[in-house]
Amino acid sequence: MKKGNKYGTHRVIEPKGVLPQPANKIDNNMDEIYDNEILIDVQTLNIDSASFTDISARAGGDHEKIKEIMFEIVATQGKHRNPWTGSGGMLLGTVERIGDALVGKTDLKIGDKIATLVSLSLTPLRIDNIKEIRDEVDQVDIDGKAILFESGIYARIPADLPEKLALSALDVAGAPAQTAKLVKPGDTVVIIGAGGKSGMLCCYEAKKRAGITGKVIGITHSQKSTDRLTTLGFCDHVFPADATQPVAVLEKIEALTSGQLADVTINNVNISDTEMTSILITKDTGVVYFFSMATSFTKAALGAEGVGSDVTMIVGNGYTRGHAEITLQLLRESEKLRNIFTELYA
Amino acid sequence: MKKGNKYGTHRVIEPKGVLPQPANKIDNNMDEIYDNEILIDVQTLNIDSASFTDISARAGGDHEKIKEIMFEIVATQGKHRNPWTGSGGMLLGTVERIGDALVGKTDLKIGDKIATLVSLSLTPLRIDNIKEIRDEVDQVDIDGKAILFESGIYARIPADLPEKLALSALDVAGAPAQTAKLVKPGDTVVIIGAGGKSGMLCCYEAKKRAGITGKVIGITHSQKSTDRLTTLGFCDHVFPADATQPVAVLEKIEALTSGQLADVTINNVNISDTEMTSILITKDTGVVYFFSMATSFTKAALGAEGVGSDVTMIVGNGYTRGHAEITLQLLRESEKLRNIFTELYA
Ligand SMILES: NC(=O)c1ccc[n+]([C@@H]2O[C@H](COP(=O)([O-])OP(=O)(O)OC[C@H]3O[C@@H](n4cnc5c(N)ncnc54)[C@H](OP(=O)(O)O)[C@@H]3O)[C@@H](O)[C@H]2O)c1
Ligand SMILES: NC(=O)c1ccc[n+]([C@@H]2O[C@H](COP(=O)([O-])OP(=O)(O)OC[C@H]3O[C@@H](n4cnc5c(N)ncnc54)[C@H](OP(=O)(O)O)[C@@H]3O)[C@@H](O)[C@H]2O)c1
Repeated sequence: MKKGNKYGTHRVIEPKGVLPQPANKIDNNMDEIYDNEILIDVQTLNIDSASFTDISARAGGDHEKIKEIMFEIVATQGKHRNPWTGSGGMLLGTVERIGDALVGKTDLKIGDKIATLVSLSLTPLRIDNIKEIRDEVDQVDIDGKAILFESGIYARIPADLPEKLALSALDVAGAPAQTAKLVKPGDTVVIIGAGGKSGMLCCYEAKKRAGITGKVIGITHSQKSTDRLTTLGFCDHVFPADATQPVAVLEKIEALTSGQLADVTINNVNISDTEMTSILITKDTGVVYFFSMATSFTKAALGAEGVGSDVTMIVGNGYTRGHAEITLQLLRESEKLRNIFTELYA
Repeated sequence: MKKGNKYGTHRVIEPKGVLPQPANKIDNNMDEIYDNEILIDVQTLNIDSASFTDISARAGGDHEKIKEIMFEIVATQGKHRNPWTGSGGMLLGTVERIGDALVGKTDLKIGDKIATLVSLSLTPLRIDNIKEIRDEVDQVDIDGKAILFESGIYARIPADLPEKLALSALDVAGAPAQTAKLVKPGDTVVIIGAGGKSGMLCCYEAKKRAGITGKVIGITHSQKSTDRLTTLGFCDHVFPADATQPVAVLEKIEALTSGQLADVTINNVNISDTEMTSILITKDTGVVYFFSMATSFTKAALGAEGVGSDVTMIVGNGYTRGHAEITLQLLRESEKLRNIFTELYA
């Protein structure tokens, strides 16, 4: 077997010297694998919400058109990085081969069912056939193969949770785990996109951390997600709003916090132009955590400067230590969360 | 006078409900001003480095072409937000009128010479004439007018420093002020784009904070900036590299830190695709501060996840409390800094 680089640079075709994520084209030939790669027989792709929303809009919701776009992305790049949003997603599959150099070093064995926790935007992928598209949950069942690099992270699918449930939650595992790190007892926390997948997990975790002296406010959008989140009962306040409208949202948050604003704001939407809202509703000394992949760096940086806000803005790193375990544990811990995730995603 | 909104939403033409920064078009009619606006007679625009580099490249360096592009941007948007980089810059000018509602509230008076510290990407601007383009320093002298909103921040040009020197430093004032907050004694700090304007200020401040038990490493690019930074003597190590090449830079940083990597990495480049390098050279538990406006949110978020790094990534907010005073003070404190800034920018 050929020797591979830890980060997978051996698969980069163009441009040379960069890593697989920023690369325009990577090698997705899987007839041979490198000595530090794991070959996965792919069952389901969980497309990133911002990416799936975009592809579906381009296809006018038509499944044959969606398939065409997906095949085209992989044919061009050797991976499924949405060229318009830049984002990926993750996948569920079975370990098919393990590179020689990893034998005895990895705790995986052939036949293990795993979810990859590195983005599809850097994962070599071959799609042979698209079998089913589940719009509601951004999941696509395929026949195909993928490669996990040596530095790539993964989670074994737990025996006690349905696999599609686990897959959905693992896709956004970074969000509740970061919420756990950021929220302190007594904090006022605002979650934008609070009725969505990552939003609900963050609301639950935020309330757990902020405690009874804290306050969790969930901003939803549709009637459906508003009702859902209200029923869950994790938040002190829930209201629907269009997060692209900063002034209207600010007035609402001022009223709910007696003008104090948020210590921590977590942005979980899947649409653009919500940076300014996130900044304005947060204290000058507070933190905005942008989990949304539709965040624009310049809009955030210049937006805060533009209103003279000293807020700390954090880029939503999809990984944080223990994020998979933390997130799966939430589903075990809260029957309400487990039920709603089963209903929506399993 | 008509009543204005604190954030300037009264000037937004399209789309409605957003703030001036994300707006596509704002009103730059200055025959009348609103009651909480300050009218500035503009002398010099300090175009953001990422923006000027981009415009100059599009114009093939031709001054007439640069003028055309600049007029076109302002005609379309009513402000100078580069449509390709999203970024602005700042301006130097004289207070010409003060809205009724601000009289007695602002400490400015007519005739004061100020630099605006809010981005040009949200500042209503009218350009009547472009008088001189100074490529080397991204500065453009014009005849024109601009508006400072009530929430807009500014700095009075100090009497003891040449005004173009002050303007250059104030443009990047956020960077050294954030460096002061992030760097602790004993830290290993890597600065990318270290020989540039914000880079030199950050190197000086980082060494001051990291102290003799800390280590400051400056990554430069051209021979010129390498020599300049080496001569300044602020860094423990200086080496030139192409920051878009993560693997090569990582090897160098591993060697200089005995494999320990950086506690804090500050990215001050003006080109894209340096996210991965910034992430890889930083400890898993460290911080990357992206001051560069050429940073891509998704490349940073997915890049860190892709290599399983738990690094904290901060969006370079151009504002932080006291940033103007802190930065001007550095120029007073260090004769070396003052001399090189005078030579390069004044
Ligand atoms: N940083 C990372 O590593 C990482 C990893 C995975 C995902 N993500 C990103 O995280 C975000 C959320 O993912 P998800 O799976 O939780 O998505 P999701 O379930 O689709 O949730 C998105 C939410 O945004 C809300 N929303 C849409 N338009 C809105 C508007 N104008 N105003 C207010 N809210 C609005 C939606 O509300 P309604 O349903 O009521 O319309 C929905 O609840 C996406 O941007 C995704 O790309 C990031
Ligand atoms: N966040 C904010 O609010 C804010 C405010 C102002 C500016 N900025 C941004 O901050 C950044 C720096 O601004 P500045 O005024 O300090 O710019 P600058 O003086 O032009 O410095 C940029 C530096 O990047 C270096 N560089 C260029 N290509 C490189 C490469 N391939 N590898 C390594 N280094 C490379 C250059 O080195 P050589 O000269 O040796 O080629 C130069 O020293 C810009 O992106 C600007 O947009 C942000």
